[in-house]
Amino acid sequence: MERKHGGDCAAFEREYGFAPFDFSANVSPLGVPEGVREAICRAAAGIDRYPDPDCRALREGVAEKEGVSPAWVLCGGGASDLIWRAALAAKPRRALVTAPCFAEYEAALGSCGCEVVRFPLAEPFAVPEEILCKVDHNIDFVVLCNPNNPTGRTIEPALLHRIVRRCRETGTRLLLDECFVDFLDEPEAHTMKGELGDCPRLLILGAFTKLYGMAGARLGYALCADAAFLDAMRRAAPPWSVSSLAQAAGLAALQEDNYVNQLRALITAQRPRLTSALRALGLCVIPGEANFLLFRSETPLGGPLCERGILLRGCGDFEGLDETWYRAAVRTREDNDRLVAAIGEVLA
Amino acid sequence: MERKHGGDCAAFEREYGFAPFDFSANVSPLGVPEGVREAICRAAAGIDRYPDPDCRALREGVAEKEGVSPAWVLCGGGASDLIWRAALAAKPRRALVTAPCFAEYEAALGSCGCEVVRFPLAEPFAVPEEILCKVDHNIDFVVLCNPNNPTGRTIEPALLHRIVRRCRETGTRLLLDECFVDFLDEPEAHTMKGELGDCPRLLILGAFTKLYGMAGARLGYALCADAAFLDAMRRAAPPWSVSSLAQAAGLAALQEDNYVNQLRALITAQRPRLTSALRALGLCVIPGEANFLLFRSETPLGGPLCERGILLRGCGDFEGLDETWYRAAVRTREDNDRLVAAIGEVLA
Repeated sequence: MERKHGGDCAAFEREYGFAPFDFSANVSPLGVPEGVREAICRAAAGIDRYPDPDCRALREGVAEKEGVSPAWVLCGGGASDLIWRAALAAKPRRALVTAPCFAEYEAALGSCGCEVVRFPLAEPFAVPEEILCKVDHNIDFVVLCNPNNPTGRTIEPALLHRIVRRCRETGTRLLLDECFVDFLDEPEAHTMKGELGDCPRLLILGAFTKLYGMAGARLGYALCADAAFLDAMRRAAPPWSVSSLAQAAGLAALQEDNYVNQLRALITAQRPRLTSALRALGLCVIPGEANFLLFRSETPLGGPLCERGILLRGCGDFEGLDETWYRAAVRTREDNDRLVAAIGEVLA
Repeated sequence: MERKHGGDCAAFEREYGFAPFDFSANVSPLGVPEGVREAICRAAAGIDRYPDPDCRALREGVAEKEGVSPAWVLCGGGASDLIWRAALAAKPRRALVTAPCFAEYEAALGSCGCEVVRFPLAEPFAVPEEILCKVDHNIDFVVLCNPNNPTGRTIEPALLHRIVRRCRETGTRLLLDECFVDFLDEPEAHTMKGELGDCPRLLILGAFTKLYGMAGARLGYALCADAAFLDAMRRAAPPWSVSSLAQAAGLAALQEDNYVNQLRALITAQRPRLTSALRALGLCVIPGEANFLLFRSETPLGGPLCERGILLRGCGDFEGLDETWYRAAVRTREDNDRLVAAIGEVLA
């Protein structure tokens, strides 16, 4: 089965001859941080060497940022690379995955012969307590994305703690994708980093992609207190999956506190503004908490917006959604206004 | 099992506090081509976008260089990434791999539950005709590296043609790693590209790593006429395994004809010079034909050379070799002289 994803600007450019306003990728709208750009330029002169296979300096930087031991950090060529490595290292028999969610989980698990059990989420896509009953000894792998992609919804923290503990009881490995957690208004209330020490079967994913405008560089990381499993993930890929350029970019990004603060303030201000504006057009908007919004339009929007130079993420390929659903990134005030105006034109 | 590889300069620097003369990685000694460095700097400003998942422009460039259809080209994050994807896509039951050879083949095949049958090569490591008898209906995957890493030996072209045809008869997929073929004096006499059209089960690997001094950027490619298999390889990984930076670097590298000509002339001149100098020290040197040499020393060299700031590739972990074997890259005349002088000191 073909997996679709947002952000394929190259395809758009080939068809239309110019770059789109891209609302289809959930990436920072503030561009590449200057320090990251400069670090890549500096590192370019040294790419005749192999990358550090252990990402030693970067792992130390991530560990400091996340407040964990460097031994708990594994870097990868994007969070998606680590999803595939986790599946290959764990080789689970039967995995529980919510629907809708990011398509790479099921693709990676399926490639290892794992049976995927879907847990359907009813609109507006909150994760209900009933999920606890599904985590039993027949399930050896659970994937949760928090906040979830494409819904933007978080799992209620008390429930998430119960799920984490339930997985510990059943010996189930829990892959918790927190790639968008930094866009929440209160990330610390939602992250399960604090549970890592007590739950060695908990694996948390983080990414540089979205928060630092670095989707093109390919860099993510996994946090886990189970050294043997992290080592199995390391060995489940070639030793150089993180390029020297990505390592240099990541180290520089970790210094970009101002950029991150500015970005988080922007998203916090623009998310409710864009939500209201889309609702004012009569659209059903899911109350997302991240840097993107899922909404429904009976009028097809994809084609007409493309003609106006705007890329949306059509969600018809997400299990549990259909082609009336769309996902849009929250971008700058001007970008968002342009999106709303264009949708208004199409609906009018 | 831990896989060792050459080129871990970061580990050396952490221990010794300075950068080594690195003979352990088989990479161009001419540094990063200026055009490649500039292309990465330009591309750095655009990494807030996802990479083109289909590497459209780069695939067209590689196709033109290799004289094949773009539909036959799949790009990956280094040739090693493509080895893992080929194993995951083919999921072979039983594979034939020569010993010694590059460790990633067996690691990738093993991760998919494939039984690996080793074909031992006797010193001086030529591939004998007897390998033809081993390619039968019980083997569904064969890996050959030509010229072979770490021996530098080529397979006699007539024999290689027979192996390719034998694989076609038995329906065996043949992964032919040609990452070092451009360093041969006559690459065109050795490459099996011309067989791709007739042998859809032939998969040829190429890399930018070595020929363009780009090991840190992670870029390689696979050539295959079997569109369905190439598509399965594409789907056996996240869609963004080639970063925007690597794609830009690769496109620029394809313009670097002068660099490649200069590099090939250097290797052609220095390979026999380094071979003779090592032999003059009483060492047994395998008659390698690529940009590296395999040789034997009863006196341990690794530690003493490290103390002199020089990294060699100790080959004790290669199946079929032991710790008396070493691999050294062929570098510039000055670098090679320094290596020979240092080895001379250690042996004296």
